[in-house]
Order: sequence, then C-alpha cells, then structure tokens
Amino acid sequence: MTQLLIIGGSDAGISAALRAKELDPTVKISMVVADRFPNFSICGLPFYLSGEVRNWRDLAHRTKAEIEEQGIHLLLNHNAEEIVAKKKTVRVKDPNGSPLELKFDKLVIATGAVSARPDIRGIELPGVFSLRWMSDSFALQKYLEDNAPQSAVVIGGGYIGMEMADAFTYRGLNVSVVEFASSVLTTVDPDFSQEISAELKRNGVQVFNGVTAREITRTEGKLIITDSEGFKLSADLVLVAAGCKPNIDLAVATGIKTGNHGAIKVNRKMETNKEDIYAAGDCVETWHNLLAENLYLPLGTTAHKQGRIAGENAIGGDREFPGSLGTQVVKIFDTVIARTGLRDEEAARAGFDALSADLETWDHKVYYPGAKKMRIRITGDRNSKQLLGAQMTGSYQTEVSKRIDVFATALFHRMKVEDLNDLDLSYTPPLSSPWDPIQMCAQAWVKYLLSDEGS
Amino acid sequence: MTQLLIIGGSDAGISAALRAKELDPTVKISMVVADRFPNFSICGLPFYLSGEVRNWRDLAHRTKAEIEEQGIHLLLNHNAEEIVAKKKTVRVKDPNGSPLELKFDKLVIATGAVSARPDIRGIELPGVFSLRWMSDSFALQKYLEDNAPQSAVVIGGGYIGMEMADAFTYRGLNVSVVEFASSVLTTVDPDFSQEISAELKRNGVQVFNGVTAREITRTEGKLIITDSEGFKLSADLVLVAAGCKPNIDLAVATGIKTGNHGAIKVNRKMETNKEDIYAAGDCVETWHNLLAENLYLPLGTTAHKQGRIAGENAIGGDREFPGSLGTQVVKIFDTVIARTGLRDEEAARAGFDALSADLETWDHKVYYPGAKKMRIRITGDRNSKQLLGAQMTGSYQTEVSKRIDVFATALFHRMKVEDLNDLDLSYTPPLSSPWDPIQMCAQAWVKYLLSDEGS
Repeated sequence: MTQLLIIGGSDAGISAALRAKELDPTVKISMVVADRFPNFSICGLPFYLSGEVRNWRDLAHRTKAEIEEQGIHLLLNHNAEEIVAKKKTVRVKDPNGSPLELKFDKLVIATGAVSARPDIRGIELPGVFSLRWMSDSFALQKYLEDNAPQSAVVIGGGYIGMEMADAFTYRGLNVSVVEFASSVLTTVDPDFSQEISAELKRNGVQVFNGVTAREITRTEGKLIITDSEGFKLSADLVLVAAGCKPNIDLAVATGIKTGNHGAIKVNRKMETNKEDIYAAGDCVETWHNLLAENLYLPLGTTAHKQGRIAGENAIGGDREFPGSLGTQVVKIFDTVIARTGLRDEEAARAGFDALSADLETWDHKVYYPGAKKMRIRITGDRNSKQLLGAQMTGSYQTEVSKRIDVFATALFHRMKVEDLNDLDLSYTPPLSSPWDPIQMCAQAWVKYLLSDEGS
Repeated sequence: MTQLLIIGGSDAGISAALRAKELDPTVKISMVVADRFPNFSICGLPFYLSGEVRNWRDLAHRTKAEIEEQGIHLLLNHNAEEIVAKKKTVRVKDPNGSPLELKFDKLVIATGAVSARPDIRGIELPGVFSLRWMSDSFALQKYLEDNAPQSAVVIGGGYIGMEMADAFTYRGLNVSVVEFASSVLTTVDPDFSQEISAELKRNGVQVFNGVTAREITRTEGKLIITDSEGFKLSADLVLVAAGCKPNIDLAVATGIKTGNHGAIKVNRKMETNKEDIYAAGDCVETWHNLLAENLYLPLGTTAHKQGRIAGENAIGGDREFPGSLGTQVVKIFDTVIARTGLRDEEAARAGFDALSADLETWDHKVYYPGAKKMRIRITGDRNSKQLLGAQMTGSYQTEVSKRIDVFATALFHRMKVEDLNDLDLSYTPPLSSPWDPIQMCAQAWVKYLLSDEGS
C-alpha cells in the first residue's frame, strides 16, 4: 500500500491527492497544510475583500470534511520543517510545536508561492498589506472593518493589483494604482491593456504608470507613498501587489534543484531530481507548450493540471504535463481581457517570424440588442502560417473568455491561422456571427499577410 | 479573365463571391438574385418579427452598395430559368420578364432552400404563414400590424419554431407550439430539450407534443388547428415551421445529380458532377466530418464555409471542405442550448461504442455573484476513448455557446475525452473554475467509464 505524502493543501496538492485516490483507492494519503485552510480559492480573495463574497468559508473549493471523506488525512496547522530524502521522511511540527516524523513512499511538494516583497522602505508599516493567503486576507479585512479607510493605493498593476483596485472601489474607497511599467497588465500588449486603464479611469481609479514606489511613511494617520523623483501620494491603506516568488526553501535544503527562473525544476512527469519526490504548482517551473522551455508561470489552472499529473505518476502512472500556453483572463469592472499563446514580441524573441493582425467587431450580430464591441489580435508566423497566439478584450458576458479558449485549443493542435475558418463553431444572432469573430480575425490576419507579402 | 456567375445572393453565394475577389481581384463576378435582398441574415428574421430589430434593413450582413463596391455585379429580382451546361450559359429573366443569357466560365449554384410544406389541409389560408425569406417576413409583419392578432400557434418545434414562439411572446401574443415528436428540438437529447420546454412554459408558452396537425380551418375569424385524434386549438395566426428542403429544380433540370438526402451532391471541393459547376449552401448535401458521409444539414455557418471554398476553387483553388460537426446553438428566452458532434444514439448508429456522461455545475465559481447552473453531456467512445460529441444548456451570457465551440475544436482534432484536461483554458472566478466545466465533465466521463468497466 503506497504512502503518499503531500506538502501543501492548495490547488496542486489537493489535485494530486484527488487524482491518486481516484486511480487507486487503496493509496494512503497524508497532507501537511501550514494553515487551517486547505483547498481555498486564492483567486477568490479579491471578491471576499470587495464584499461580494460575504462569507470567507464560501471561498473553499471543498470543505475539510469533503476532503477527508475522500480518505485524505489532513494535518492542518502543521509545518513541514525538513525533507530527509534518503530516509524518505519529512520532519513536521504540529500545532503545539511538537515534532513529528512522517514516512513516505512518494512525496509531492506543493508549497506554492509567497508574495514578493519589493524594496520599499516602510513596507512593514501598519496599514500596508500584501495578499496571497487567507491570513493576509483576514488581516486586510480586519483593517478595513476597524479603520474604515477612505482611500487605498495599490502598488502593482498586475492581475491581483487590478482586481483589488476594482474590489476597493466596489467597497467605496478612492483608489489609485502605482505601476513601475509604462502600462498596467504587462502580460498583454499596451494597446490592449489600455482598455483596462480606461475602464479603471471610468470607474474613478487613478492610474500612475512609470512610477517606482520607494518609500512609505506614516504622517498624521496617512500613509505617504513616494518615489525617488518627487512623486507623492497619500492614502489610508496600501496594498503591495508586486507578484509572487516560489516557496522553495524546504525543497532546496534537501538538495532539490531549481531552474533558471528560481523555482523547482521538474520534468514533464513532475519529477524533481530526487527519486520519488514530485513537485507541482506555484513552487515549480512550468513547461511552455509552444516555447518548449521552462518558465515561471504561477497560475491556479496550471497548478491543478500539474498536481493531477503528479498524483497520477506518484501512484505508478506515466503521464506528461503537456505544457502551458500562457492562457489568462481577468475581469476588471465590466471589461474582460484575455490572452493565450505568444504575443508579437514574445514570438519574435522565440525565433518566429511574427505577424499580428487586429479586428474590432461585435460580440454578436449588431442588429440583436446588447451587442458590444470586442477587439481581437491574432499573432501568427509568416512562414509556417501557424497560429502563435491571441489577445482579446471586450465586455463581461460576451464570451471573451471561452473565445480565447477556442484559440487555446487551436494552439494546442498547432493550427494554421487560415484553418480556423474550418472550425464548425456555433452561431445564433444573439451570440455570434456566421463567421465567429475568431474566424473574422483569422481572415483579417490572412488578408494582412497577403498585403504584406504583396508590398 | 475568369467570368464567375453565381446564382443566389444569400450566405453561400456572397461568401463565394467575396472569397474569389479576395484571391483574384481580376475575376468578373455576376450574381443572380431572385429578390432584392442580397446577403440578408435569414437567422435574424425572428428578431425582426419580435420587434427587437426595428428596421429590417439592419438584417443585411452587407448593403447592396457594399457588395457592389467589391466589384460584384448584382442582378436583383432576376430569375435563373435554365442552366445550359454545354454552352456554359444561364438563361435568366429580368424584372420585366425579358430574357437574358449570361455566360460563365465557372458557375456557383447557391439557390438555398424553401420552406417545407407539410401535408396540412388549409395551409394556404390567410393568416397561415411560413418563414424563410424576406418576403415571408414582410407578409407576416404586415399581418401582425394590420390584424393585431392576440394568439399564435407555431406548428413545429425546431429552431425556427422555438425562436418564433419566443418572438411572438415578446410581441405580446399568447403562443402555443404543436410538435409531432414527443419533445421539441429533436436535435438534442429529450432531457436537454426539456430545459427549453420548461423555459417556454415559464414564459407562458403552451407546448403540445405528439400532435400531428392535419387541418387548419377558419371559423368566426379564428384559425382552428386539428389533428386526426380530436386535438383542437384555435388562434389568430398560425406559423408553419416544419423545416426546409433544398431548392434544386434548376440544378436537376440540367442534369446535376442529387444525393441520398435529396440535395445537390457535391464533392468536398464543392464540385457538382458537371464540369465547372459548383454548388454550396442549403441546396447541397454536406460532408459530416465525423461520420464521413453526406447529410442534409442546412445552416448559415456551413453555407458560409462551403461558399468560401466554392469561390476559392472556382478561380483555381484546390481546397476541400473539412466537413460539418453538426454544431448548433439557439437561445430561447433566457436559456441557451447547444450541441456539437454526435449524440449517444447517433454515435451508436454510426458504429461507435458510445458512452455518455453528464455534469451539472455552475458557469463560474459559485461564490462570485450571478453564477448559473449549466448542464453538459459528453459522448465518447468506450474503446478509443475519443470524444464524439457534447450537448450543453445554461443561461444566456454564461458562455455556453463558446464552450460548445471548445468541444467543436477538440472534436475537429479527434481528441480523447481525458485529453481535454490538457487544454490550457482560461480562468477567473467570475467566468469559470480552475477546471472549466468542460474539463469537469471530461473527468466525470472518465470516472463513469472506469466505474462502467469495473462493474
């Protein structure tokens, strides 16, 4: 009877456990969880803090009882202190600080990530928060309730920063965003992320680009954020949303190798360099399906997939992670923005002869009420004519997100741009056009290529 | 300089013309259109008749001027009377009834379909309508305006019948549906179409299944619909929506062959049996990508694709129609229902060892406001584990339609059900789950297969 030990109770850890149990109900699974919140939706934190989710318990993908019903032994509030790879044990501290030694046949490391702490003086001041785990969330929520702040500054214009700008606004705060890059959401092209900046402004959020916050001070109850060039902004609350870094100290201490991007190096079976030790989720580097190299791409969807594969392989499976396509979507106020695959400059850097073409159209036939504008950009390779990536922005509830998924599915199969026209996609006037916008943009790309070759 | 002649100015004809011009701007194109409404959205008629589309002119995909700007010579209100294949001419009558002889190097027949006229006595009575072309639409609209009917009976529970039940209700009429089959929308499984029946009832529409209308009579200003078994229903207006049949007389008269389903037989290059004569759209039989045989599947999306290929090949291209997957979607009131590929019994009939599994879940994380229930059914093959089809129903604006398109894209590439889990689909709590419902249903199918094999 295999003893499977899993360190970490978030997306990757839970997925590994569930998949192992599904395939082999006899496997014994123990899961070491550092807090008392296994299988919580980290992606849901902004909606708890906005007040849209009333009860934090609703953020659980599964309850503790549901997990235990699957035969998974949970050790909550237990800290994994050392992996003794040779002995195949993990030294753990229980909630009372007493040591425990847990044996394993197979180990899955799913320790996730921690918030990045940028070099800002005063980052430890009361009223300055980061957001990654439930405990961060409770601390921020308590501050919001106890101090009723009127204004917030979000440092960082990435996904969480944007969602929290939305969440604080929803809660009635005056919100500003400070981002060191020249645009927010640098994972899409600037003229696409511009749609998000515009949406933020429409909703009263001030956006400061090209500002690197250097110091936070507290004066007369206010937090003052400054950069080194005279920028100054005050607020009642500061959220530092500067991304995350892999939580790898435990793994590194036992000799597990990391990759070029500083996260645990695994092969596509999710095996580390140590026998019988797997790793998955935000603590590992992720194989990119198109680039055929490892990157650091911490995402819940990827963590679920990697965990599932680690769980399958840990009980004797032989499955490979097919790789990420870098698919992402976020909704900010009423605007949705999504991407998959490679952007023009990413494709060019990878050696493709990249060409991008745009289309602005309606999400459905404009004669039917409620049609909204959407923008699509397709990137393809001039020589092979292969689809390389797509970006899209439009309104909430206009199927932006699943349209990007059609592109993701096409990318997975290395379709040529022109061949998107062969797809038998669904149509009714309230939901699309006879050629879906996906295909209209494919036709625009092909025309642009023709004209580009002609010129 | 190639002279391309096209008979028919709807989806297939226009697509053929535009594609030919795109690839070879020197081609001379004439288009014979029987009415004065080229390139109108037939699928939009219910929304004009509901009153949601105020101006019928908005139903045009393109205006006459826009088509002519592309260098396409339109002959409106011209009737093609005879194709003289040997001479490569078409005899046409102009609006005054004068004969014209048009020469062609290549001909595309895109004569579409006509409404089926079921064997119902009294079908020609005033107040009884069918709906296919703009003229039908104007006649019905005039009757609605002049007679202000209070009640309508729709005979036929297919897509147009369902949309018109919605449209008449939107317009304030009391609506009943009479359908000979035991459920409406027989293109999906009965327990899926049940969601549409329930939605109709919620909106006050009476549905009579298992009733074959035999006679319509007019008594005291009312139309009375009866069957042969004592069923009786009265209304101010009757719409017969019993499907359509291919408009092929012109083609047949010149020796063009039809297939097993009574529509024009074409190969995958959209060539008929007569040299230099192509056909596309609702007048032809359609290659089914999964069944590898011809069926009669008249749909706007298919007509566009086939037309585009006919246009490309007519000017020297060599492209094959990849085939339909039978993808369809319709929105009735607030419910959307969609399908792609094969259903259980269709798959079994085609020799697959079909297995179907269901999932009911939420369109997005239930903790985020506005989550709605959706139902998915995946059909796959027990032996090859290949995906064969999917059906889905849920609320409007919950991305049902583009989720079916992810399935359609996966089907196009002959994915295995389990491999849907490899797709890097987008996720944010307001729009999906870390495993999209598509993938959750794939996991349910795989589990069901395991349990089925175990039993």
